[in-house]
Amino acid sequence: MRVVVPVSGSDPKTRLASVLTPDERRDFTDAMLADVLDALTGAGLEPAVVSTAPVDCDAPVTVDERGLDALVNDLLASTVDEAGGALAIVMADLPLATPESVDRLVSTDGDVVLAPGLGGGTNAFVCRHPDFRVDYHGASIRDHRRIARDAGVDLSEVDSRRLATDIDEPSDLAEVLLHGDGAAADWLADAGFEVALTDGRVAAVRK
Amino acid sequence: MRVVVPVSGSDPKTRLASVLTPDERRDFTDAMLADVLDALTGAGLEPAVVSTAPVDCDAPVTVDERGLDALVNDLLASTVDEAGGALAIVMADLPLATPESVDRLVSTDGDVVLAPGLGGGTNAFVCRHPDFRVDYHGASIRDHRRIARDAGVDLSEVDSRRLATDIDEPSDLAEVLLHGDGAAADWLADAGFEVALTDGRVAAVRK
Repeated sequence: MRVVVPVSGSDPKTRLASVLTPDERRDFTDAMLADVLDALTGAGLEPAVVSTAPVDCDAPVTVDERGLDALVNDLLASTVDEAGGALAIVMADLPLATPESVDRLVSTDGDVVLAPGLGGGTNAFVCRHPDFRVDYHGASIRDHRRIARDAGVDLSEVDSRRLATDIDEPSDLAEVLLHGDGAAADWLADAGFEVALTDGRVAAVRK
Repeated sequence: MRVVVPVSGSDPKTRLASVLTPDERRDFTDAMLADVLDALTGAGLEPAVVSTAPVDCDAPVTVDERGLDALVNDLLASTVDEAGGALAIVMADLPLATPESVDRLVSTDGDVVLAPGLGGGTNAFVCRHPDFRVDYHGASIRDHRRIARDAGVDLSEVDSRRLATDIDEPSDLAEVLLHGDGAAADWLADAGFEVALTDGRVAAVRK
């Protein structure tokens, strides 16, 4: 199975700008990517990274400045349609991913296997059928279900909190501190973040 | 396995007060409870409900006005310590729960099996060991890990987005619309809620 991790190489994670400087966002993004690559290799896969700008990581990197839809749909065409292979796309901002959660994704039966993200996203998927394409804008999980249904493919979903937890907003950081044990959790702790109690759910605050 | 669903019978879900009237919060809470009970019975279990006030549902109901910690710790003492049985506690606000996710919870090996909630909570657990107690205040998942570790019990966690998604705040409602197909999703749709796109994640808005 071909496994690709798309990542934003320049000015990533702008929705974290209220709590992290641009350099910090870059470092934290690299730490999350390292955790994702660890989970994938731990599951016996050989991930490749496609980035909009050069990044430093333990995987082969291709720089491709296109948007996510064009990139992934091109990978689907070349890997699945033409070569008859399987393609997994795993987002780079899933620092809670583990070899076990990745293994559940890639071992779930289905022409298309989706891993929904919180808030309507599609954090990872596996495709084994030539008629599937992606559209990451808006509530992509609904679009991807519809596209799969319209194509008549056998659709499955993997029920994983770890794959669902993409880190986009300050309120997401607490999840990394609560459940992570990799580079991203270490980076946040080193940067002074800790879990604080609020009226409802906990938050990550900086000392 | 004894399975108990604790529920708040009076003035539930106050953090939804900005979008739902008191009567609506009561009705929506009942719908979520119905979904949880459906998932549990679909997994072959026979759930019982313990509520702080009478509720209408398809399960035997006991009214108990004590707080959650006292209630659950008493159930642990009577079910596990004294009778040598296993106890599962499943929260009533998990409308995305399915028979499959419940089955993963109860079939995971471990003296204690935790299902973390988003934001530090503990949305469900199974206990098969007499030395475990609960403390739901604050970031309870961390406390429950510590209590289990201090007791020397064999601790596992189940990685389920469906069990992790407790519905407490307006921003949670979109998850029900995106992924639910039971009573709670129907109730929200009937009440005029629909998924709307925002800058980041999607939200549930009322027409």
